[in-house]
Amino acid sequence: GYAKIDHHRGIRQGVPEVIYGQGKTPEQILGIVKAMSDRGAENILITRMSGDAAEFVQESIALDYHPIPKIGIVGRCKEVTAQGKIVVATGGTSDLAVAEEAALTAEVLGNEVERLYDVGVAGLHRLLANLDVLMQAKVVIAVAGMEGALASVVGGLVDCPVIAVPTSIGYGASFGGVSALLSMLNSCASGVSVVNIDNGFGAGYLASMINHIGGAV
Amino acid sequence: GYAKIDHHRGIRQGVPEVIYGQGKTPEQILGIVKAMSDRGAENILITRMSGDAAEFVQESIALDYHPIPKIGIVGRCKEVTAQGKIVVATGGTSDLAVAEEAALTAEVLGNEVERLYDVGVAGLHRLLANLDVLMQAKVVIAVAGMEGALASVVGGLVDCPVIAVPTSIGYGASFGGVSALLSMLNSCASGVSVVNIDNGFGAGYLASMINHIGGAV
Amino acid sequence: GYAKIDHHRGIRQGVPEVIYGQGKTPEQILGIVKAMSDRGAENILITRMSGDAAEFVQESIALDYHPIPKIGIVGRCKEVTAQGKIVVATGGTSDLAVAEEAALTAEVLGNEVERLYDVGVAGLHRLLANLDVLMQAKVVIAVAGMEGALASVVGGLVDCPVIAVPTSIGYGASFGGVSALLSMLNSCASGVSVVNIDNGFGAGYLASMINHIGGAV
Amino acid sequence: GYAKIDHHRGIRQGVPEVIYGQGKTPEQILGIVKAMSDRGAENILITRMSGDAAEFVQESIALDYHPIPKIGIVGRCKEVTAQGKIVVATGGTSDLAVAEEAALTAEVLGNEVERLYDVGVAGLHRLLANLDVLMQAKVVIAVAGMEGALASVVGGLVDCPVIAVPTSIGYGASFGGVSALLSMLNSCASGVSVVNIDNGFGAGYLASMINHIGGAV
Amino acid sequence: GYAKIDHHRGIRQGVPEVIYGQGKTPEQILGIVKAMSDRGAENILITRMSGDAAEFVQESIALDYHPIPKIGIVGRCKEVTAQGKIVVATGGTSDLAVAEEAALTAEVLGNEVERLYDVGVAGLHRLLANLDVLMQAKVVIAVAGMEGALASVVGGLVDCPVIAVPTSIGYGASFGGVSALLSMLNSCASGVSVVNIDNGFGAGYLASMINHIGGAV
Amino acid sequence: GYAKIDHHRGIRQGVPEVIYGQGKTPEQILGIVKAMSDRGAENILITRMSGDAAEFVQESIALDYHPIPKIGIVGRCKEVTAQGKIVVATGGTSDLAVAEEAALTAEVLGNEVERLYDVGVAGLHRLLANLDVLMQAKVVIAVAGMEGALASVVGGLVDCPVIAVPTSIGYGASFGGVSALLSMLNSCASGVSVVNIDNGFGAGYLASMINHIGGAV
Amino acid sequence: GYAKIDHHRGIRQGVPEVIYGQGKTPEQILGIVKAMSDRGAENILITRMSGDAAEFVQESIALDYHPIPKIGIVGRCKEVTAQGKIVVATGGTSDLAVAEEAALTAEVLGNEVERLYDVGVAGLHRLLANLDVLMQAKVVIAVAGMEGALASVVGGLVDCPVIAVPTSIGYGASFGGVSALLSMLNSCASGVSVVNIDNGFGAGYLASMINHIGGAV
Amino acid sequence: GYAKIDHHRGIRQGVPEVIYGQGKTPEQILGIVKAMSDRGAENILITRMSGDAAEFVQESIALDYHPIPKIGIVGRCKEVTAQGKIVVATGGTSDLAVAEEAALTAEVLGNEVERLYDVGVAGLHRLLANLDVLMQAKVVIAVAGMEGALASVVGGLVDCPVIAVPTSIGYGASFGGVSALLSMLNSCASGVSVVNIDNGFGAGYLASMINHIGGAV
Ligand SMILES: Nc1ncnc2c1ncn2[C@@H]1O[C@H](COP(=O)(O)O)[C@@H](O)[C@H]1O
Ligand SMILES: Nc1ncnc2c1ncn2[C@@H]1O[C@H](COP(=O)(O)O)[C@@H](O)[C@H]1O
Ligand SMILES: Nc1ncnc2c1ncn2[C@@H]1O[C@H](COP(=O)(O)O)[C@@H](O)[C@H]1O
Ligand SMILES: Nc1ncnc2c1ncn2[C@@H]1O[C@H](COP(=O)(O)O)[C@@H](O)[C@H]1O
Ligand SMILES: [Mg+2]
Ligand SMILES: [Mg+2]
Ligand SMILES: [Mg+2]
Ligand SMILES: [Mg+2]
Ligand SMILES: [Mg+2]
Ligand SMILES: [Mg+2]
Ligand SMILES: [Mg+2]
Ligand SMILES: [Mg+2]
Repeated sequence: GYAKIDHHRGIRQGVPEVIYGQGKTPEQILGIVKAMSDRGAENILITRMSGDAAEFVQESIALDYHPIPKIGIVGRCKEVTAQGKIVVATGGTSDLAVAEEAALTAEVLGNEVERLYDVGVAGLHRLLANLDVLMQAKVVIAVAGMEGALASVVGGLVDCPVIAVPTSIGYGASFGGVSALLSMLNSCASGVSVVNIDNGFGAGYLASMINHIGGAV
Repeated sequence: GYAKIDHHRGIRQGVPEVIYGQGKTPEQILGIVKAMSDRGAENILITRMSGDAAEFVQESIALDYHPIPKIGIVGRCKEVTAQGKIVVATGGTSDLAVAEEAALTAEVLGNEVERLYDVGVAGLHRLLANLDVLMQAKVVIAVAGMEGALASVVGGLVDCPVIAVPTSIGYGASFGGVSALLSMLNSCASGVSVVNIDNGFGAGYLASMINHIGGAV
Repeated sequence: GYAKIDHHRGIRQGVPEVIYGQGKTPEQILGIVKAMSDRGAENILITRMSGDAAEFVQESIALDYHPIPKIGIVGRCKEVTAQGKIVVATGGTSDLAVAEEAALTAEVLGNEVERLYDVGVAGLHRLLANLDVLMQAKVVIAVAGMEGALASVVGGLVDCPVIAVPTSIGYGASFGGVSALLSMLNSCASGVSVVNIDNGFGAGYLASMINHIGGAV
Repeated sequence: GYAKIDHHRGIRQGVPEVIYGQGKTPEQILGIVKAMSDRGAENILITRMSGDAAEFVQESIALDYHPIPKIGIVGRCKEVTAQGKIVVATGGTSDLAVAEEAALTAEVLGNEVERLYDVGVAGLHRLLANLDVLMQAKVVIAVAGMEGALASVVGGLVDCPVIAVPTSIGYGASFGGVSALLSMLNSCASGVSVVNIDNGFGAGYLASMINHIGGAV
Repeated sequence: GYAKIDHHRGIRQGVPEVIYGQGKTPEQILGIVKAMSDRGAENILITRMSGDAAEFVQESIALDYHPIPKIGIVGRCKEVTAQGKIVVATGGTSDLAVAEEAALTAEVLGNEVERLYDVGVAGLHRLLANLDVLMQAKVVIAVAGMEGALASVVGGLVDCPVIAVPTSIGYGASFGGVSALLSMLNSCASGVSVVNIDNGFGAGYLASMINHIGGAV
Repeated sequence: GYAKIDHHRGIRQGVPEVIYGQGKTPEQILGIVKAMSDRGAENILITRMSGDAAEFVQESIALDYHPIPKIGIVGRCKEVTAQGKIVVATGGTSDLAVAEEAALTAEVLGNEVERLYDVGVAGLHRLLANLDVLMQAKVVIAVAGMEGALASVVGGLVDCPVIAVPTSIGYGASFGGVSALLSMLNSCASGVSVVNIDNGFGAGYLASMINHIGGAV
Repeated sequence: GYAKIDHHRGIRQGVPEVIYGQGKTPEQILGIVKAMSDRGAENILITRMSGDAAEFVQESIALDYHPIPKIGIVGRCKEVTAQGKIVVATGGTSDLAVAEEAALTAEVLGNEVERLYDVGVAGLHRLLANLDVLMQAKVVIAVAGMEGALASVVGGLVDCPVIAVPTSIGYGASFGGVSALLSMLNSCASGVSVVNIDNGFGAGYLASMINHIGGAV
Repeated sequence: GYAKIDHHRGIRQGVPEVIYGQGKTPEQILGIVKAMSDRGAENILITRMSGDAAEFVQESIALDYHPIPKIGIVGRCKEVTAQGKIVVATGGTSDLAVAEEAALTAEVLGNEVERLYDVGVAGLHRLLANLDVLMQAKVVIAVAGMEGALASVVGGLVDCPVIAVPTSIGYGASFGGVSALLSMLNSCASGVSVVNIDNGFGAGYLASMINHIGGAV
């Protein structure tokens, strides 16, 4: 077999199965999905899935595909299992793909998610006009490229954990996300931590973990 | 005045006041401490405080000083206000200063902390022998320099958030913590996020935030 | 002679003479000051001047020395020659030395300067409480280390040129000012440009140039 | 909506609307243009616009498209509203696209612009032969890739602000504009500041801001 | 001739001939293969060989082609000439191509190879379940991208040399293999050394050298 | 306890105990040495040990101290337990400290070591004059700073494993060993692998591992 | 006009005209060639010229095109005008394109050139077998990618200037030529200087300059 | 012996002996000097020699010591053996130490040297006022830190080889000489090549080599 499927994770972690689609052939993805289904998985999230792979899998199995964040979902149950709300904020419209990877991941994992897109700090009024939404969050995911200042500003406004996701959006001295990454790591606001550039999945997963602390609905 | 003291944070965030000592003179630190006390602060944490500054402040005010993590604490109340436990793990003994910055910060903020030091992945039995401690954590802080692999291994073992703190410990291609930082950002384990190199304070603060979710003792 | 003094700049640029003190011996600095005075300079600014050099020069000539920004001024005339106001804002108290290099340079060059220190974006209320000051500026100099977000936020609020000065303040992934520099270069706000890390002089000089456009007092 | 349009900027900043075309679909761009027109915008600048997007928009709305700098202009009014002149100089012919982004931006914003292309410092006579043009500028935009020396040389010749734009033109150790960027940040000439690599728009916008200081025509 | 073929290496090093296919045309590769055969080579390994080149060569000569690691083998003799076993372990399934370059190289050079794929440290049970295989190795080749922690963990478990191969697999802050490379260079486990990013060939070759120490079968 | 001593390694790996002295106080080092002796260790190697620490330990215990490579040895048994010879070669005399760390480590671990210092490739005759020594090696350790070319040249001459150790010797674009490190990783010679910058210990340890394959004396 | 043609260089420098083809359209190249011819140029070298551009120009003007180094030559006169010989050596066959750019440039400029390709240091006998050729050189151009050691070894063998050209050939930690560049800059051999990565033209031009010192044939 | 002295170089290269003093003890330097004298060396150059080492050596042997470039000269014969002139130009006064290392090296090797210091490009008139000196050079050494533009400007003015020496002078984004190094490597002027940061010796040596081509005085 080309991949060791972790038969215990579903049970141990109480979460849906996750497949990282990048670098896997459509056939491999379908094979893993089927193997997971065979042993009882009812809820499978596939990240970084190409449109071709989605079409190929959809010929055999019902799959809900989101082309912008390149996410496929098999058998998603809609139940919300955590009490709090996760807010996903972005600096610009170009950060949408990464933000949706985070938001959909969190939704599949049983969370209520509110989106606050295009509220970057170069136009502060857009963020301040949505302070009430931010303030109600149990966790905020701040997604931004370029100068990545969103995480610091949000972190200074809210009292809950802020998960910062640098994106590779930008040009020149943004260096594929490095500028935003460094900004976020150097954030002077307390409560901010950072995941890899473009890692919406990781942010959504961690946000869900935190949001589930303190009991189910 | 040289610094704008934030008179509302104590109330808004419900946490002790914090002073970042680096680059402040002993006189400046004492001045800020006094101003804070005057307006009612009972609990002040001073990070990156030199031994000289500590001695100077201790002449005027009772201060509990920890020389290795360079932390000073004024009027620390010992109460634990959160139910869960925070585990602070380190790869080596050299990571101690950063780990203690995290642990003391979390303790001052009202958390029970358990230390698991020198359990780096090059001697896996040391980590596996302490699996029970890890499994009881509500949050884990993983502190490591050099190759920084501890965060990934711990992240794969536990189901709670893991806050990774790269340290500047190492030589040659460790590049002052960059190697550990990159390792941690690239962690394949879900639930891992990262703070700045040597930022024990940030990790302790965020861990406390998460640990206080779900109600007090 | 060890240095070619530019005998025409005083006339050509209409500004006081400037000596870059770094790497020059006290004797060399005094020698250049005397040569400049001999040919009629009434107003000399010395940047990056050590305390020792200042003491040495003060034995021969009246010199106004500012130890934090390491600036020495000979024969400063107090006149303000431009109509507008330059605002110098900093993210934290540690950026003071660089900010004062900028502010004093601008003052020596005949500008009214207003200081707005410690208004970093992790505590946005400190900046917003001073919006009126910012709005009256003809140029803003935004000085910040760490994540350098101040320039973007200020740039989004004001309609005048913003000169961003990254500082080497910070630790870990701030990489001696690189993180702040990249943030500022990637600023999404229009009207922002950047000078070298810690180059308060350059920012003050350029701000004065812009502030003098449009006629004298 | 995918983008929060800033309804107040037209009024607050007194400038045409600007759309950053990179990463937006032709449909999105047209949608934003229409929304802006609906609320009264008469003058819209679209940067980083693909030829395809231009053709698509031109089917619905009159658009003046410049393929080399990839700029689209809707309803450009030709009036010059500032007294001074902006000179745009480039090191080589390959810097043309970035230079035109700057020049067209400045023209749309109501400035008289003079172009001085291919005057790089490796053939100094080309620059010196145009000294009179440089000397008449109220602001100079210096655009150069490779070693980026143009900004320093120009900065030493003129007494007005110089906005340096590093370009990604070059190969090998030019590292996509990093070499030129560093050169320009380290400029020994006073009055020089820097924008992001290839950011012609930012330079044109800032130059216009400065050129408008001191009153309209 | 476009290449100086080393007529003595076959004899001097006692190993099959090796051709590095990258950047050579199909015609050049065939030409070198023929020249080698003409002077007696019976066993030729071609690395980084495109599918097109393989098809072209197969028209003239029997060639065993492996498309994933892009390896072509002419006249491979199956004999195992060393006593010990080489274990090739990978962190994920995406590291397969590099791992197979190593494994096939080692097999062509007369070694018994055991594969242990997808045993990354974020799911430690997968590695621990295969401890017996690891313990029997005379050399281990540890292939991993992303955080590259596999080499350290394996190095801490076994007492034989570990050759670490960082791969360019990953995204964001993996920087094309740099993160894994740094991790491996900083390994705290003794007995670990590192080859270039994606250099499966180099690892297989060195492993064979070590495995042949101590006598043939 | 500040450090978890690994009570099984002596037995599991059949090698002397090793203490990494960097960042440990003299008291801590002595404490660890005593604890090791108490449980039966007869042979202890201390690397990166300061002169002060050595003097402090020597007051209590017999310790053989080498100031240039900063190595301390307790109870070294002189026996050679492996058949082959390890050659340690350096590019210049400045690489001596790192080379001796490697050589002494290998000797303590029971190997015969031959030193070939100052045979850098800019004076090829020095290396060629010693070809016979190189050819008799079972493993070569190539230690070099600056351009690090020694590893490639030696790797092309010998048929045994070459362990390359980049050193931080150099200035300017040697970047603390990075230039030599990259050279060595890119070596075109087969059989070359690399350890961390200045990691003489790691090279000596691995060389001993390889040299002990194939049976004792 | 899109380019300022330097009408005086032909006379001032006594060399053929040179056009840098990269980023110029076929039409632009032809236009420049014609303008040069019109004012009397008899000898024109075009570097980085695409095959398409060559075909386009050949329709109007006789052009000698070399596809591997992408060089076009108009009206090349074959005369050798310098007494000495330039040797161009490469590490591998993949460095051929850059080496030919250097060699052809030197030949067009009136030099006798001898090629010594694929003599990299990992097989030293190939270089030593050609010592006589090297020793007769008045200048050597050493072209190498990967570890770039060739320049140091050659520099140690000869007593004439060595111009080192790093190439972008390689993979992984060769970082597009950076590894070779750093090696060459750190060369311990005297008489070695370096040009930009892949800058065969620059090396050929400088070699010709040096070779012409001391009088014509 | 700690160093292999090259007994043939004096004869083979016809130049004085050179000792690289960095990292050698005063005793070692004296030892090498004596050994060289014993076998007939009459002319020894010691670079990077500390003041302490100079004093120590001067107790035994006559040594001419230059503290700024840290050069010691034993038995320097004043004869000029080459016809041409070498011009050493610097951007600022802070580049003096490196420039003198180059100039003294060239003088010891038998060249006439003319110094042109503090002629940086931010004040072009200083360079243009010395055009006649530049034009008479057979080789120019251009020494500059910060933006390093001097090499390009000089290279465009003269028709002889220009050896560029980046210096580590500067702050912030000069990164210890990297900015100047990159500028110089990317120079658009033909005839420019580069040596390591601060490598005045290397530049002086190469300049002498070139200047001696074409016969002695
Ligand atoms: N976008 C992503 N980035 C990083 N890790 C991911 C991503 N998506 C999924 N993963 C991780 O990849 C694992 C599955 O990998 P695989 O077994 O290769 O399909 C999941 O358990 C996640 O931990
Ligand atoms: N802090 C500074 N950073 C950069 N440049 C400076 C600074 N202070 C002064 N300068 C420049 O240095 C010039 C004087 O240099 P010098 O002739 O070496 O004293 C001034 O004209 C300024 O352009
Ligand atoms: N994947 C690889 N990476 C690095 N070096 C290789 C690789 N494959 C082969 N080689 C080396 O390339 C040499 C052959 O190069 P060539 O003469 O260009 O075919 C072999 O002897 C190996 O040392
Ligand atoms: N400042 C310098 N930078 C680089 N190389 C130098 C320098 N000074 C001397 N050298 C070289 O070092 C060699 C002498 O080195 P050593 O044998 O260690 O004294 C000389 O032949 C030069 O090639
Ligand atoms: Mg907060
Ligand atoms: Mg986990
Ligand atoms: Mg603004
Ligand atoms: Mg100027
Ligand atoms: Mg081991
Ligand atoms: Mg070999
Ligand atoms: Mg030589
Ligand atoms: Mg020239």
